[in-house]
Amino acid sequence: MDPTKIAVAPLAIAVGQPDANRKAAAEAVTEAAAAGARLVVLPELCDSGYVFDPADPAAEARGLAAPAAGNPTLTQWRALAAEHGLVIAGGFCELGDDGRLYNSAAVVDASGTRAVYRKAHLWDNEKLVFTPGDAAPPIVDTDFGRVGLMVCYDLEFPEWTRLAALDGADVIAAPVNWPGYSWPAGERPAEVVKAQATAAASAVFVAVADRCRTERGVPWVSGSLIASPDGYLLAGPVLADHPAVLVADCDIPRARNKRVSEHNDLLADRRPELYARLSATLTAGRSSLSGGVKPRRSVQKGP
Amino acid sequence: MDPTKIAVAPLAIAVGQPDANRKAAAEAVTEAAAAGARLVVLPELCDSGYVFDPADPAAEARGLAAPAAGNPTLTQWRALAAEHGLVIAGGFCELGDDGRLYNSAAVVDASGTRAVYRKAHLWDNEKLVFTPGDAAPPIVDTDFGRVGLMVCYDLEFPEWTRLAALDGADVIAAPVNWPGYSWPAGERPAEVVKAQATAAASAVFVAVADRCRTERGVPWVSGSLIASPDGYLLAGPVLADHPAVLVADCDIPRARNKRVSEHNDLLADRRPELYARLSATLTAGRSSLSGGVKPRRSVQKGP
Repeated sequence: MDPTKIAVAPLAIAVGQPDANRKAAAEAVTEAAAAGARLVVLPELCDSGYVFDPADPAAEARGLAAPAAGNPTLTQWRALAAEHGLVIAGGFCELGDDGRLYNSAAVVDASGTRAVYRKAHLWDNEKLVFTPGDAAPPIVDTDFGRVGLMVCYDLEFPEWTRLAALDGADVIAAPVNWPGYSWPAGERPAEVVKAQATAAASAVFVAVADRCRTERGVPWVSGSLIASPDGYLLAGPVLADHPAVLVADCDIPRARNKRVSEHNDLLADRRPELYARLSATLTAGRSSLSGGVKPRRSVQKGP
Repeated sequence: MDPTKIAVAPLAIAVGQPDANRKAAAEAVTEAAAAGARLVVLPELCDSGYVFDPADPAAEARGLAAPAAGNPTLTQWRALAAEHGLVIAGGFCELGDDGRLYNSAAVVDASGTRAVYRKAHLWDNEKLVFTPGDAAPPIVDTDFGRVGLMVCYDLEFPEWTRLAALDGADVIAAPVNWPGYSWPAGERPAEVVKAQATAAASAVFVAVADRCRTERGVPWVSGSLIASPDGYLLAGPVLADHPAVLVADCDIPRARNKRVSEHNDLLADRRPELYARLSATLTAGRSSLSGGVKPRRSVQKGP
């Protein structure tokens, strides 16, 4: 069987310009399709943009959000998926039936929206805008393999990525917006390292679509990548500030072989009976959030 | 407060020569002490050696194992710790009171053995020799910080490293023997990537002591390293085939600051109520161990 081509599309997106953003996404999907991609991953919140007005971020986000049903972004993706015979995973700004805002992502194919996921681990000012989701990453069966879906900071929680692997994901598709910061020379950004480790820990493909250029002065890591089930990079990170479509050949059945030695299997070797405390509530005082200590990651802020 | 110097000591060890191996460890500890180290990490099974006779590995291991009480290796470490005013974390071949063999590690200081840990996730032929431990990684309070302890393949289970962080480890000390294999040019070995991601995911220091040279024809990754709470390398990986003592300045209080943005804390942001399935028994058929598929990691075998 020929390998499956997976594409990730770092886009240059402008907050508040959903039509232009959808146009940029369509161009990237078309380019990915021309390269033979069966799955295209787009960035987080790639219709609304990300850096909402600091004066009232929730108000600006609300003006850009739409319900999943009849959503213009998802409708566009369905048309693109049908036209090109591929699957799209990307982020959109969702207005819930409950009136709340969600930092959501969807997997869409020619048949329509296969899954909607609401980001469960919110980053920084997103907590002022969005309600966190409370459902596990969906796993969508496609004709080339099973696509798990999560968004940005979710990917930094090994509990979350492991759940997707246990649920059978062959590929974890992760729309992200990684705000730029600096890292030591000779190193890859920690988000990239974590994505690689995620792939290797559970022998899954990980496909990350980050942003490029800047938005209201905020730069991005531009860390779009495709990692193999061994944890090595098949494409990316670009670490360059221009739109691009990265494509890699992915031998999906490799993600169904969790063996790493004659006697070892990455999932069967787990000791779930010893992991119960992972689901216990954090002991009071263990966290440092209330400690008033300066954050360590130097996140770039908007103007 | 001055940073704490942490050392990791990749050793050239010969299976079946515990006296020579203890001498090599003593030399490394002395060198680390001269460099000002407060904590020295030694490799896995660094008294017995690792590559037991393939004809009857359990028999050879049994001949080299000793109980933790009165153990000659731990006795030597206590003397070294007292002489140099430091803490030693290393692996030894333990004969349990129950007559079983354990791939164990200990944290030892001038007061004696502070903790013994039995490897919970066994690698390859170790399953023919050792009984897996069933206790969580110990966390040992020292005058410079809290040292968590686990062994080699344990470090590849994000569930396990997270537990150590939740239990308050500032430093995860990991004696390892990483059997050599090849990885793509431009990449670091996946074990190194996982160690870095472990550090970054929970904002802890990770100190790994691997082996060097060969043992019965088995080479090693030689991936000894010290990673910062940001996931970047403060020392290593050596990736060179000679004994060495790596030392890094570690600002231990950094590991007590889990904040990564104004509104984010790596531990407080967890959603433990959504992680319960991590401790559920694996669904039958999900694992591939019985599938007869060729292992993906090409492990070097002895002659």
